[in-house]
Amino acid sequence: MSEKASVLLVGAGGVGAIAALNLDTGGQADVTAVLRSSYEKVVNEGLHIKSIDHGEIQGWRPSNVLNKIPSRTEKEFDYVVLATKNIADHHPTPAELIEPAVVPGKTVIVLIQNGLNIEKPFLSKFPDNICLSGVSMIGSHETSPAFIEHEDSDRLIVGAFKNPNFSKGKQEQVAQEFVKIYGAGGKTVCTFTDNVLYDRWQKLVYNACLNTICAVTGLDTGRMRLADDAVSTLVRPAMNEIVTAAYACGIELPEDIVQRMIDVDPLTIYFKPSMLEDVQRGNLTEFENLLGEPLREGTARGVAMPTATFFYHTLKAMQWKFKEQKGLIDIPPKTA
Amino acid sequence: MSEKASVLLVGAGGVGAIAALNLDTGGQADVTAVLRSSYEKVVNEGLHIKSIDHGEIQGWRPSNVLNKIPSRTEKEFDYVVLATKNIADHHPTPAELIEPAVVPGKTVIVLIQNGLNIEKPFLSKFPDNICLSGVSMIGSHETSPAFIEHEDSDRLIVGAFKNPNFSKGKQEQVAQEFVKIYGAGGKTVCTFTDNVLYDRWQKLVYNACLNTICAVTGLDTGRMRLADDAVSTLVRPAMNEIVTAAYACGIELPEDIVQRMIDVDPLTIYFKPSMLEDVQRGNLTEFENLLGEPLREGTARGVAMPTATFFYHTLKAMQWKFKEQKGLIDIPPKTA
Repeated sequence: MSEKASVLLVGAGGVGAIAALNLDTGGQADVTAVLRSSYEKVVNEGLHIKSIDHGEIQGWRPSNVLNKIPSRTEKEFDYVVLATKNIADHHPTPAELIEPAVVPGKTVIVLIQNGLNIEKPFLSKFPDNICLSGVSMIGSHETSPAFIEHEDSDRLIVGAFKNPNFSKGKQEQVAQEFVKIYGAGGKTVCTFTDNVLYDRWQKLVYNACLNTICAVTGLDTGRMRLADDAVSTLVRPAMNEIVTAAYACGIELPEDIVQRMIDVDPLTIYFKPSMLEDVQRGNLTEFENLLGEPLREGTARGVAMPTATFFYHTLKAMQWKFKEQKGLIDIPPKTA
Repeated sequence: MSEKASVLLVGAGGVGAIAALNLDTGGQADVTAVLRSSYEKVVNEGLHIKSIDHGEIQGWRPSNVLNKIPSRTEKEFDYVVLATKNIADHHPTPAELIEPAVVPGKTVIVLIQNGLNIEKPFLSKFPDNICLSGVSMIGSHETSPAFIEHEDSDRLIVGAFKNPNFSKGKQEQVAQEFVKIYGAGGKTVCTFTDNVLYDRWQKLVYNACLNTICAVTGLDTGRMRLADDAVSTLVRPAMNEIVTAAYACGIELPEDIVQRMIDVDPLTIYFKPSMLEDVQRGNLTEFENLLGEPLREGTARGVAMPTATFFYHTLKAMQWKFKEQKGLIDIPPKTA
């Protein structure tokens, strides 16, 4: 295949910008990026990237930069790669967002996003398109608009979500094709998996528990480990519930997964997980996909998940607050 | 009794300032107030009080104003009235704080503070002193140093905590004496109770639940009622647990107490309970007496209290964070 694949990449934050750079570096993809907050800056000055994989790059741009999702009538993309946050309880949902660009029967949708059941709205809206899972282990942040600090190497695990309208073989072939394009530059580790749920549940042991509990309590992961019995009373019980839910869903996680996820961030970097950052900025959180979905899958199978349930309802109340603060919810005026 | 009672009043925030004013207005007490943050301002300018009971008063001072607890060798007070917050897990504890001023066998200790088991450290430290309970239903706030906004009438319920070294009759007589002194000005409703635990548990239905859940989620009581299912999933279960714990401790609360406490603040004033204000200011919270003690009393009697347990551990982690932020806890230095 000498012709480059056309990729529409949506969201160039910490994850998306490095994904764009990886795809570009490999030389097998022509990347069009859709940006929101950093659009003007990237058009005028390009991205400034400090990357453990790519070195320091100033003024870099994807082949094309847009500020809205283009229509399929303008250009038919081979891939739409979504690297935005996934706020399931807010419109437009990610599936609604990319709808204009998806060519039925052609465009491959790649979700480099966290959480469980994120593919369901896509499979439902785009039954004739293959949908791939990307689980990213990257440590990369947009510390200011168009400035990306990429501190921990990009490792992307790609597989196919199960679309019943395609054969397993066909979907896996498409996933492996994307792995080849993504890893072609040799600067990153992109691997294929035939079990996307395994990788998603594994990451949920961190994201449904440590990420959410840091967000609610306001502690980073280092302080969480130092704070008296916070790990034993909150984090470990929540993680055990997620491991049991995974098992009930047919995913047997490694025996040491709980301790490994508790210790995964070096203590003294005092790492703030994404949801804690969102909460501190008053942003909507991904709590539905990171916690709500594993909670629903587990409880539907009879798993007792009291800790996860409490944090879910707490984060739901916080999400309401953030929506109200953003003017997305109207409340009666204040009286004296 | 023509001679005035000598009262050392500790803490002149929203509750304490109005208590000082009430005692002064009645003419039966000579009030010495111990202030911390507002000391200079009160000495120089006096208090500025806007009170629903007393009207607007500028430049008012108690008879004496001190900036530290005086020693019993300087003056023997008849009463030490504590109207500070009660942070049980931080030194000096309230009992440690007033220790220099307490005359064994003489000083009556009055705790106008919330929560359960607050008398225990006092009975243990001062076995020869009578200790009174004051449950305050006041709506009063120190909105800036030495400026008090008192918007909801002062109603104080006074009784005696059980000190086994005194007869019930003696202790109740002392409580009724204080009721007379406090209510003598006629501007406030001060009543005697022979069942202080009843009033404390009743108030805990609000303070152990709505107050704590507002603090964790960041919602005020009005928004809590508007926020989807926050009341049904968080507030009501927590309140039911507290009511059951009270019952296990021999206190049968009114049947409608849960709904009454949910609705107690008018919705559209969007009232921020004290612990929410503390959390937003990064202050230590009274979570041990407001939630920890009722939780321990209930669970010790076999009451299942999962919601209260969850919020307790969450607030404990948050308390650790506030202590660390205030430099009360040292942590290893941050590494790159």
